Amino acid sequence: MTTNDSLARLAQIIESRKLANGGNPDTSYVARLLHKGPNAFLKKIGEEATEAVMAAKDLDYGGLTLDLKSSFVGEVADLWFHSMIALAHYGLSPLDVIAELERREGTSGIEEKALRKAENRDLEEHQAAKDEGKTA
Amino acid sequence: MTTNDSLARLAQIIESRKLANGGNPDTSYVARLLHKGPNAFLKKIGEEATEAVMAAKDLDYGGLTLDLKSSFVGEVADLWFHSMIALAHYGLSPLDVIAELERREGTSGIEEKALRKAENRDLEEHQAAKDEGKTA
Amino acid sequence: MTTNDSLARLAQIIESRKLANGGNPDTSYVARLLHKGPNAFLKKIGEEATEAVMAAKDLDYGGLTLDLKSSFVGEVADLWFHSMIALAHYGLSPLDVIAELERREGTSGIEEKALRKAENRDLEEHQAAKDEGKTA
Amino acid sequence: MTTNDSLARLAQIIESRKLANGGNPDTSYVARLLHKGPNAFLKKIGEEATEAVMAAKDLDYGGLTLDLKSSFVGEVADLWFHSMIALAHYGLSPLDVIAELERREGTSGIEEKALRKAENRDLEEHQAAKDEGKTA
Repeated sequence: MTTNDSLARLAQIIESRKLANGGNPDTSYVARLLHKGPNAFLKKIGEEATEAVMAAKDLDYGGLTLDLKSSFVGEVADLWFHSMIALAHYGLSPLDVIAELERREGTSGIEEKALRKAENRDLEEHQAAKDEGKTA
Repeated sequence: MTTNDSLARLAQIIESRKLANGGNPDTSYVARLLHKGPNAFLKKIGEEATEAVMAAKDLDYGGLTLDLKSSFVGEVADLWFHSMIALAHYGLSPLDVIAELERREGTSGIEEKALRKAENRDLEEHQAAKDEGKTA
Repeated sequence: MTTNDSLARLAQIIESRKLANGGNPDTSYVARLLHKGPNAFLKKIGEEATEAVMAAKDLDYGGLTLDLKSSFVGEVADLWFHSMIALAHYGLSPLDVIAELERREGTSGIEEKALRKAENRDLEEHQAAKDEGKTA
Repeated sequence: MTTNDSLARLAQIIESRKLANGGNPDTSYVARLLHKGPNAFLKKIGEEATEAVMAAKDLDYGGLTLDLKSSFVGEVADLWFHSMIALAHYGLSPLDVIAELERREGTSGIEEKALRKAENRDLEEHQAAKDEGKTA
């Protein structure tokens, strides 16, 4: 079983929870989030990201115990899971995310996008920092 | 190697960026983040989560255009990518996350963990709401 | 002006950084953020919130040293500062936030809003948890 | 009534909700969060930051209606309120945050800290971007 297969199957399950596909908000957590609309699951992305960061800090200080590792993995799983609910809502799939990650890798290295962002920020901030020094 | 192992391959590339594996902070964005330490890449998880949420709101209002979809996919890719850097730092991999998502699906449905959280909160909040009504 | 009006004075300074009021993006960080537009300063709210949470976790584990306390206070200051830039952009001020906090306190206790949210969630989750137990 | 007075009074109320000061987790939302411990209220900071960002995006697209403005102010109030619960837990107060904001203003302008961060990032990213261009 490849990760792509796993994610694709998980995406199918999420897809089946859409109201249009028979999902029932009264009996399914995913159907309920999809029924409540974007703010409900988008909020969860921010929430789970924070929980992942906190679990990582616990690993920093508590050491790489199996228990703390499991907690962190669980929070990242929550984060990815809720990302996938959002993807489904907008007619997208985790395979689109995988394809984007591969595209970056294929064209100019996986760090290309991150780098481009950093370079843009670099130019902006460089100019700004230079100018800012002159004034209060 | 097929596209089916995308995340595993990406994890290998991140792994190779560790200083212990010859990664160079001066030439690689990933190596630099790993070299700076946890706060550097954990901060990015919070940042990219926020950017993903903003891109989703753009989709809500701007409609499901290819351009806005690509932006959202790009932000989720950023979010997952930085999650994978953190996983690598703690000796974990995206396969652990996938395994956790499958475990939830296998044992009692993918919604089990989310549900358990909701139930716990339910019990706590139910009691609290009941009591709170009595006092200022 | 006394220190008692700190937030109002800070809001005035931010106000003066708007382009329409002569703010210069080349020489002022605030003017630059306002010039770049909402996503630039909204992203910072997510980023600074994450940094505040990380600094708090450092306090949890490192103890209440003056140094760690200062770091946390600094991150909360960053968070509030960037919130105030957003408020200014939308024609609002920290005084509106204070007024809202006082309103909650005045009408039915400062915990009223938080409580109402919790109660709503309670009712929803209670029904959901009850139903979810019946099905996969 | 100055903003400092308002925040100080609100901080006192939060202080009174500590268990050591007679706060009751069964009847007070604040006491309950403080009783649950840091992760409970830190998570809320991430959550409310995301909700504030979403309310701001609603303002971007929906226009500066009174209703959308109120929603955004409400979310910022939630964010600041939960920041204050965290401050209280660590023996700090919103006045420490105000003092830090004033200190920045007093010594070298309110943008000093933000600027210093930008400059540091600038130097790091500038070097990185220069080097990164040389390699894959």
